[in-house]
Amino acid sequence: MTVRVGVIGTGMIGEDHVRRLTTVVAGAAVTAVTDVDKDRAAAVAERFGGPTVHASGEDVIADPDVDGVVVASWGPTHEEYVLAAIAAGKPVFCEKPLATTPEACSRIIDAEIAAGRRLVQVGFMRRYDPGYRALKAVAADGSIGLPLLAHMAHRNPSVPPSVTSEMAINDSVVHEIDVTRWLLDEEITAVMIMSPKRSRKAAEGLQDPMIVVFRTASGVLVDAELSVNVQYGYDIQAEIVGETGNARLANAGAITVTSERGRAAAVPADWRERFAGAYDEEFRAWIDDVGAGREASGPSAWDGYAAAVVADACITALHSAPDSGWTGVPLRDRPAFYGA
Amino acid sequence: MTVRVGVIGTGMIGEDHVRRLTTVVAGAAVTAVTDVDKDRAAAVAERFGGPTVHASGEDVIADPDVDGVVVASWGPTHEEYVLAAIAAGKPVFCEKPLATTPEACSRIIDAEIAAGRRLVQVGFMRRYDPGYRALKAVAADGSIGLPLLAHMAHRNPSVPPSVTSEMAINDSVVHEIDVTRWLLDEEITAVMIMSPKRSRKAAEGLQDPMIVVFRTASGVLVDAELSVNVQYGYDIQAEIVGETGNARLANAGAITVTSERGRAAAVPADWRERFAGAYDEEFRAWIDDVGAGREASGPSAWDGYAAAVVADACITALHSAPDSGWTGVPLRDRPAFYGA
Amino acid sequence: MTVRVGVIGTGMIGEDHVRRLTTVVAGAAVTAVTDVDKDRAAAVAERFGGPTVHASGEDVIADPDVDGVVVASWGPTHEEYVLAAIAAGKPVFCEKPLATTPEACSRIIDAEIAAGRRLVQVGFMRRYDPGYRALKAVAADGSIGLPLLAHMAHRNPSVPPSVTSEMAINDSVVHEIDVTRWLLDEEITAVMIMSPKRSRKAAEGLQDPMIVVFRTASGVLVDAELSVNVQYGYDIQAEIVGETGNARLANAGAITVTSERGRAAAVPADWRERFAGAYDEEFRAWIDDVGAGREASGPSAWDGYAAAVVADACITALHSAPDSGWTGVPLRDRPAFYGA
Amino acid sequence: MTVRVGVIGTGMIGEDHVRRLTTVVAGAAVTAVTDVDKDRAAAVAERFGGPTVHASGEDVIADPDVDGVVVASWGPTHEEYVLAAIAAGKPVFCEKPLATTPEACSRIIDAEIAAGRRLVQVGFMRRYDPGYRALKAVAADGSIGLPLLAHMAHRNPSVPPSVTSEMAINDSVVHEIDVTRWLLDEEITAVMIMSPKRSRKAAEGLQDPMIVVFRTASGVLVDAELSVNVQYGYDIQAEIVGETGNARLANAGAITVTSERGRAAAVPADWRERFAGAYDEEFRAWIDDVGAGREASGPSAWDGYAAAVVADACITALHSAPDSGWTGVPLRDRPAFYGA
Repeated sequence: MTVRVGVIGTGMIGEDHVRRLTTVVAGAAVTAVTDVDKDRAAAVAERFGGPTVHASGEDVIADPDVDGVVVASWGPTHEEYVLAAIAAGKPVFCEKPLATTPEACSRIIDAEIAAGRRLVQVGFMRRYDPGYRALKAVAADGSIGLPLLAHMAHRNPSVPPSVTSEMAINDSVVHEIDVTRWLLDEEITAVMIMSPKRSRKAAEGLQDPMIVVFRTASGVLVDAELSVNVQYGYDIQAEIVGETGNARLANAGAITVTSERGRAAAVPADWRERFAGAYDEEFRAWIDDVGAGREASGPSAWDGYAAAVVADACITALHSAPDSGWTGVPLRDRPAFYGA
Repeated sequence: MTVRVGVIGTGMIGEDHVRRLTTVVAGAAVTAVTDVDKDRAAAVAERFGGPTVHASGEDVIADPDVDGVVVASWGPTHEEYVLAAIAAGKPVFCEKPLATTPEACSRIIDAEIAAGRRLVQVGFMRRYDPGYRALKAVAADGSIGLPLLAHMAHRNPSVPPSVTSEMAINDSVVHEIDVTRWLLDEEITAVMIMSPKRSRKAAEGLQDPMIVVFRTASGVLVDAELSVNVQYGYDIQAEIVGETGNARLANAGAITVTSERGRAAAVPADWRERFAGAYDEEFRAWIDDVGAGREASGPSAWDGYAAAVVADACITALHSAPDSGWTGVPLRDRPAFYGA
Repeated sequence: MTVRVGVIGTGMIGEDHVRRLTTVVAGAAVTAVTDVDKDRAAAVAERFGGPTVHASGEDVIADPDVDGVVVASWGPTHEEYVLAAIAAGKPVFCEKPLATTPEACSRIIDAEIAAGRRLVQVGFMRRYDPGYRALKAVAADGSIGLPLLAHMAHRNPSVPPSVTSEMAINDSVVHEIDVTRWLLDEEITAVMIMSPKRSRKAAEGLQDPMIVVFRTASGVLVDAELSVNVQYGYDIQAEIVGETGNARLANAGAITVTSERGRAAAVPADWRERFAGAYDEEFRAWIDDVGAGREASGPSAWDGYAAAVVADACITALHSAPDSGWTGVPLRDRPAFYGA
Repeated sequence: MTVRVGVIGTGMIGEDHVRRLTTVVAGAAVTAVTDVDKDRAAAVAERFGGPTVHASGEDVIADPDVDGVVVASWGPTHEEYVLAAIAAGKPVFCEKPLATTPEACSRIIDAEIAAGRRLVQVGFMRRYDPGYRALKAVAADGSIGLPLLAHMAHRNPSVPPSVTSEMAINDSVVHEIDVTRWLLDEEITAVMIMSPKRSRKAAEGLQDPMIVVFRTASGVLVDAELSVNVQYGYDIQAEIVGETGNARLANAGAITVTSERGRAAAVPADWRERFAGAYDEEFRAWIDDVGAGREASGPSAWDGYAAAVVADACITALHSAPDSGWTGVPLRDRPAFYGA
C-alpha cells in the first residue's frame, strides 16, 4: 500500500520533500529522483534510502515504480512536467507556482479536464496550517457573522538584494492570494497596490513594504502588508472581520518567557519553522489521497491558475496604477469540472 | 490654587466632564455651567455642588469666577465659544470638533495667534491613553526602527440608524486622524477611502465597514478600518510597523477567565469604558497647565484644524473617488506659532 | 466640601500620599504634616502647597483644620496615632501594618468599637486594583463556580541585604494574606511555609523564594510564591480556581512589541508602577467616604488585625515547622461591629 | 527499512497507536496485534491493513515479523510483556505505567541491565510536546537562571465516578512526576499532598482538587494542582521559576476569536487533542531509533521505575500524612547503566 513517489527537482525545497516523504509521512516512499544538477540528485538519493536517479523529469514520470510525482524544479519547467504527468495519468503534486503564466496554467487546466480526473495538486501549504484551518472554520460556522473584510501581514526577516517587487509578489503575496480565495471561498476580482514609505533595508527596485488590497466577487476587501526585511523573524498575521466578530491567528508560541527582556514569546525564524507542520500535513493528505486512489482533494489546478492571474494583476497594478484604484483580474470562466 | 472651570454644554459628555472636574481631578472646581436646555443645566448644577447656572455661554466665559472654559456644546456652536474665550484671554478646552469646518478652525487659529498665547486645547483624549502613549514612545525610541506604515481599527458596538458615513468620519475616524498625526509626528497629506462589503447591521446610507487610508508627508501609510455595528463591544486596535519591528495595543483586559467559553478576556462595552482613564488624564493635564499658568500643552487648535481638513478630505474622497486613488489634504501652512 | 487631611510621616510613602492628595485626588487638601525628621516634613510641606508643619502626630490629629488623618510613619508608631485619631473621633487612614503586633491591632479594634463608628481604614491598596477587583467579581458571580483553591506569586526585583524572612512576610506576604481574605470573603485559619531551593541572589538569613500556603475557614487552599530577588521586574500573579473555571490577572501591559527580542510586553519595574492606579483609587474612595461623612468602607481595623495574626502565624511556621504541616491562626472572635 | 511493530492490547489507546503507526508515522508497519478481546483485535486488524492477529502477547513478541513491541494492554500485564520482550532482545515501547509496582519496575530494570542494552521506552509523551521541550530548553540555557521552583496544573474535564484518588495519582499526576524529573534533570526525593476544598463535581472517595508538592534532590519545589472535573476542557499548565526569570506553557490556541463571548481562545477538549502531536513525535522518535538499530533514547525503564516510586510515595502521603510534611521517596540507587 506504500505510495511510491518520484521527485523532480532536488534543490532546497525538493530535498526537504524527499526527507519528508521518506522520514515523516507514513505510507510513502521516494523511489525516483532527478535534478538538473545530477550530482545533487545523486547526493540526495544517497542520503535518503537510494531511490533511482533518473536523467530527466520525463524518465521519473515514466518510471513504472512511480505512483505519484512531485514537481519541485525551477518554476519555468513546471508546466511541462505537470502536463507529462497528466498525460501519464499519474497524480502530480506541483510546488507553487503551478506554472509561470496564466496561459500555461490554463493549458494544464484544459489537459486535466481532458483527462477527466483531478490529478493535480498545488503546494499551497497554508491550507494545512492549524491556524488557517481554524480561521476558515470560524469564518464558515457563523461565530463571527458574515465576513466583510480581512487584514493580513506577511513579514520575512530578509531577502537577497536580487529580489524585485515582481518576485516578491509571485513568491510571497501569492500565499495571501491563495488563502484569501480559500478562506472566503470566492474569487478575487480586483486588486490594488499601495506603496508605503520604503524600508532602508530594502534593495533598489524593491517596493518594501507594499500593501496589496484584494476585492472578492462578493465585495470583501482584504488588505495584505508585505514586508520582506523586518530583520526580527518570520511573522504571518491574518484576521477576518465579520459582521459580529473577528478572528485572528494567535501566533503565540509554545511558551512565554519572563526575564529582563520582558514577558516574551519567540517569533519563528523563517517560513520553514513557521509552516513545518503544514508541509507535513499537506503531504500526508496528498499521500492519503493517492494511496486510496482518490482524486486530489487539495489546492487544484484551478487554484494554481487563479493565483497566477491575481499575481499577474498585482504586477500590472504595480506598474501601471500604483495607489490609484482597482485593477481587474481577468479570470476565465471556472470550469464545472472544478465544482461550483 | 483651585482652578475654577465654567462648562458650556451639559449634555451627556458635558455632564461627564462636570462630574470628572468635581469628583475625580484634583485642583479643579466647576463654578459655572450653562446649556441650551436650562433645566438640564440646573439639574447638573444641583447634582454637582451647585455651580452658577448661566443663561449663555458668553456669560460663563465672562464670569469672573471662571478661570478656564470647557466647551462641550453642540458642534456648530464651538467656534463662537472658543473665539469668545480667546477674546477673554481665558484657557479653553474644546471637545472635538474644534469647529465644524476647516475655515472656522482656521479663524480660531488666527485668533489664537493674534492673542499671542496658546489658550486652546482640543479633546483628543486618546493621546492620554497609556496604550497610545506607549506606542508613541516606542515609535520614537528606535525599538522598532523608523515607522513605515500602521494598521488601525475602530469598532463600535452599534450606531443609531441616523448616522451617515459623513458623521462616522467626523465623529469616529477623526480619532484615527489625530492619533496618526500625533504618533507619527507629521501631517497627513492624502487620503483614500475603500468600501468593503457592507454589514447587514448597517442602516441605509452608511458605508459600514469602511477602510480609510492616510498618507503622511514622509510617505507612511496608515490603513484604518471603521466598523460601527460590530455588536460585541468597543474595540480599538492600532499597530505601528517599523523597519525592524512593530508595536500594537495589547487590549488584553485586566483578567483572563477560563471557562466553558474558552480562555477569554472581556472587551470594553463602549468608549467610555475604554477611555475612562484617558479622559481623566486629559483633564488632569489641562487643569495642571491652567493652574500653573502655563500655555496649553495638549492637542492644539492646529491639531483641531488639521483633523478637520483631513476629515473633510475623507468625505470628499468618499463622494468623488471611492476606491480610486488619493485625495489631497489642502492644509494651510503651519504657523510658526505652533512649533515645527 | 474639601476634605482637609493631616499626614503623619512624610518619608517615601508619606510624601507620595501628600502628592496624591494634593495633585491627583479631587476634593482633598493636605493641611498639616509632621515627621520625626522635621526638615523633611518642612521640605515636603513646601513642595506641596504649604500645609502646617506640626511638631508631633498628636498635634496633627488635634489640628482643627484636619478632617482626616493619614498615618504613614514608622510601623511601631502606628498604634498610638490610630488610637489618638479614634479618641479624637477623626477618620484615620493607616498604612499597613495597622500595628506591629496582633495585640496592638486588637486594642485598636476595641477602641474603634468603643467609639461606635468605623473610623479606621488600612492601606491594602490591592483591593482597588482593576485586576483584583475583576477577580473578586468573577469569584462571586458564578462564572467559574465555587472557588476551591488559588495560586499567587509576588515577585520583587530585589531587596536590600538587610531584609529578613520575617520582614518579607510582614511587608510582602501580608498583601497576599489580605487579598486572599478579601477575594474569598472568609478568614485564613491555618498556614504552612515551604522552603524551595534558595536563590543565590538572596542574602544570608533570607528564605528566598518561599512558598506560603493559606487554608481558609471553608477549606480553600491558596499557595503563594514569594520571590524577592527576581531581577527582571515586579511581577504579581493571582489565579482563582473554581469548580467550573478559573480566572487570573492578565498582567499583559499596554502594548506588545515585536522585535529582535521576540513578541514582548513590558513588566512593571516596581510596586509603584504596578499599583499606581490602585493607590489613587484607594485614596479617592477614602476621601469620598470622609467627605460624605460616611463610615470607612475600605479595609477595616479587623482586616488589619487579621492580617497581623496570619503574618504572625507564618513567622511561627517558618521558625518551628517549616515544610511540616499546618500552623493555626489564633484569631479572636470577629466582633459583630465588623459585620458577618 | 520499515520497522515492523507488534501491538499488545488494542483497546482505545492501543488502537490509536495502531492507527498512528499505520497512517501517521513514516517507516513503520503494524504486522501483529493481540488483545484479551479477540474480536476487538480482529476488528482493529481489519481496519488497519490486516496485521496478523495473535492469541497472546507472547506470540506477538515471538513473531519473527515483529521488530519492536508496543505494550498497550491492561497495566497489571505490562511487566510480563516487557520482560518477555527484553528476553527476546526486542525493543519495547510500554505505555505508562511501566509496571504497577516499584518492585515490578525494578525487576524490569534488572532484566534490561542483564540484557546489556536499552530496549525499553516508557510512554511519557509530554517529553515530545513542543511546549515542554521549549521549557526544558529554557531551563537549561540560562535564560531564566537556575530553576528554584515550579508550578503546574493538570485539569481534566471530568472523570468517571469510579476514579479514586489513588487512580488519579497513578494516571494523571504521574505525568507531572515525569516532567518534573525530566525538566529539572534530577530525582524527586520527597512529596507532600495537600487537600483543598473538594469540588461538588467529584464523586465520593476522590480528593478533587488535590495539590501535590515534589521536592527534588537539589531542593527545587514543584507544586502541582490536580483537578479532574473542571468541566470546561483539558488544561495543562506548567511554569518554571528561575533565579532571574520564569517560563510557562503558553497554551494560547491557534486563533483568537473576538465576539459576544469576549476575546477568546479555545481550550482543548481532552488529552488526545492536547497531546496529539506529542504522541506522534514520541512514536516517530521510537521508530527512528528502532529502525536505526539504536538503543532507545526516550523515557527509560529507570524513568518508569522512578515515576512508580514517586506515585507510590504520593499515595502513602495521601493515606498517612495529608497536609502534614514530607514523605520520602525510597528510590534504589540509580544504576550506572542509565547514565549519570
